[in-house]
Amino acid sequence: MSINIPNGFLFSAVEAAIKKSGRKDLALIFSLTPCAMSGMFTTNKIKAAPVKFCLKQIKSNTGQAIVANSGNANACTGKQGLDDAILITRLVSNYLNIPFNRVYICSTGVIGTPMPIEKIKAKLQGLVLNIGKSDISDVAKAIMTTDTFEKIVSRKIKIDGKTITITGISKGAGMICPKMATMLAFIITDANIDKYALNKALKEAVKNSFNKITIDGDMSTNDTVLIMANGLAKNNLIKENTDEFKRFQFTLCEIAYKLSKMIILDAEGSTKVVEIEIKNAKNDKEAEKGAFAVANSLLVKTAIYGNDANWGRIVAVLGRANIQIKEEKIDIFFNNVKVAQNSILTGKDKEANEVLKNKEIKILVNLHIGKGCCKVLTSDLTEDYVKINAEYRT
Amino acid sequence: MSINIPNGFLFSAVEAAIKKSGRKDLALIFSLTPCAMSGMFTTNKIKAAPVKFCLKQIKSNTGQAIVANSGNANACTGKQGLDDAILITRLVSNYLNIPFNRVYICSTGVIGTPMPIEKIKAKLQGLVLNIGKSDISDVAKAIMTTDTFEKIVSRKIKIDGKTITITGISKGAGMICPKMATMLAFIITDANIDKYALNKALKEAVKNSFNKITIDGDMSTNDTVLIMANGLAKNNLIKENTDEFKRFQFTLCEIAYKLSKMIILDAEGSTKVVEIEIKNAKNDKEAEKGAFAVANSLLVKTAIYGNDANWGRIVAVLGRANIQIKEEKIDIFFNNVKVAQNSILTGKDKEANEVLKNKEIKILVNLHIGKGCCKVLTSDLTEDYVKINAEYRT
Repeated sequence: MSINIPNGFLFSAVEAAIKKSGRKDLALIFSLTPCAMSGMFTTNKIKAAPVKFCLKQIKSNTGQAIVANSGNANACTGKQGLDDAILITRLVSNYLNIPFNRVYICSTGVIGTPMPIEKIKAKLQGLVLNIGKSDISDVAKAIMTTDTFEKIVSRKIKIDGKTITITGISKGAGMICPKMATMLAFIITDANIDKYALNKALKEAVKNSFNKITIDGDMSTNDTVLIMANGLAKNNLIKENTDEFKRFQFTLCEIAYKLSKMIILDAEGSTKVVEIEIKNAKNDKEAEKGAFAVANSLLVKTAIYGNDANWGRIVAVLGRANIQIKEEKIDIFFNNVKVAQNSILTGKDKEANEVLKNKEIKILVNLHIGKGCCKVLTSDLTEDYVKINAEYRT
Repeated sequence: MSINIPNGFLFSAVEAAIKKSGRKDLALIFSLTPCAMSGMFTTNKIKAAPVKFCLKQIKSNTGQAIVANSGNANACTGKQGLDDAILITRLVSNYLNIPFNRVYICSTGVIGTPMPIEKIKAKLQGLVLNIGKSDISDVAKAIMTTDTFEKIVSRKIKIDGKTITITGISKGAGMICPKMATMLAFIITDANIDKYALNKALKEAVKNSFNKITIDGDMSTNDTVLIMANGLAKNNLIKENTDEFKRFQFTLCEIAYKLSKMIILDAEGSTKVVEIEIKNAKNDKEAEKGAFAVANSLLVKTAIYGNDANWGRIVAVLGRANIQIKEEKIDIFFNNVKVAQNSILTGKDKEANEVLKNKEIKILVNLHIGKGCCKVLTSDLTEDYVKINAEYRT
């Protein structure tokens, strides 16, 4: 995998012993110059301290550094948690010698445990001094929890004859269900782009990527997507509704989609990536409701794991999904194999079971009601998911 | 276990090879005299053929026989499925020599596979001739799918100096989430009770039992609760809003609750019965929403399985449950151990982890918002649930 790094971004990752293992767990992304910034955050009513903090910081739409840790979510930690987040950010801004309001903080890990603030404080100066000695892959690794591989996607596009690089990293693995970005993702670019245009591009990208994935239907308290654009590619400023904007947005969407797909690929214990598409629902909203209901059904997910094209379970889920359906109109396909027509079997179960042996599967449900459609990515459900989550804190 | 049988009810169970194993899978409950009857059925928009059929039959509020099979749900089987259900019912009414409109039919098992109607037809006369040679336990066994034990509850009460017996059986195991009765349950009684009173008593009983349990959040296409009252106890007719009615209803509620608890106890792969109580929510409806969200969270269920009092996951679920909460007001108890106060840990995690080693656990969440409350029964989620449901049709 060749990873391109946008101009002017530097990285650092160190070990602060927040995680039990001897892995790096404290990381920093730093831009040599101030950036236009945009962010999207969990819509869970319970928000982790760093999310509460970032929601304030992001109002300026500028920034220069992101400090992130894994091993502790700093969620359900009360006033102390917020004080800790502010202290870390303040110390990082001091060591970096940049204004406090240009530093963002993100945490991921166990909920409800106080931050080991002394351990972290002791490492912050070292973290800053280490800038440039780590690469983006070290940062991607340092934000992993139960993830099994780092997630990095990178693209180059030409705008005004200048090469613009956009590179994103993310972590996922569990407690993954959208509304919105159900994980951490940091995207950096050297594009010169207006902050409103950056906001708009990010919203569009998240809508069709991080907000269309689910592993277990559980929304995290820490979900954060941040994008930083430092302008060092020296292109003319990209503004909304221009051709340049469209090309930038298209590439950003592609990166966000790839990152979100990697999250599903690395879903806890999963063996398969499954795209659930609902077609011809009453409207897009109902299609989304139906797609998520199917994607989150334990019975559907376990059947997929067992290579069993049990379409009856899908019909049963649609029946309780609180959307308009007509039993006698539902067709279901596994890849291109039609297993059910008008909610009645076609006799192609065996063929469909074979399809399920693939690592990537598309399930298409045609409701034949209206024109609404939605695609959602999900994983299968295995014994290992249970094992990982039964033992997470032990 | 001593099981009491109401006067005038007889049973039959035979093997029709609908299930793969050599187990009984076709059963009959027969009353010597016509009964007042009431029923409640799945609210899934996809209804199995027998449910569609029973919904019509029950309008008369009378009946005399229930024929039931396991191994095939007769759901998503189109017009053929309905024809099959009608044929079976007609043949049973012929062999029993009772009117067609007094016979009910219920099915449970795989969805989307046509009924093996020839096999069943061949056994129906034998089923009727076998009446009286089986007991209620044979019937309870014959309706089992992945259930590991038969579920029978029986009570006696005195009304007008007459002994009234109420006895119920049920099957559950998977695809269990209410709205309504997420399983099959048949309750028989020799009470002499007015049909409107019987309706009302059943609704009340189901509300706080079968409609307050969840195993996997998946609602079946076949859920049915039927109650038959043949009056052979010879008490004076029980009418609504009398003391006798209240006593009858109380006992019926108790039976329904015990049956529904047995379903959770026998949840696929589960090791624990967990009561989730949400107290002081904005109102009862929000309490119910919150309780079901917690009860269906994979992360909560796997943590319980792993003896991990991971209250942070509970707070995170409440945050996405779309109910009114205040982070700084939430208290959480595992049995009587307060693990979190104001959404902050109390330091009693280890004590709470010990609590989780019990087979029956109570989790209480006090939202300190209003006066709404709700209790829901659920199970933990284990590797075995995944295994059972990955291999269900193989």
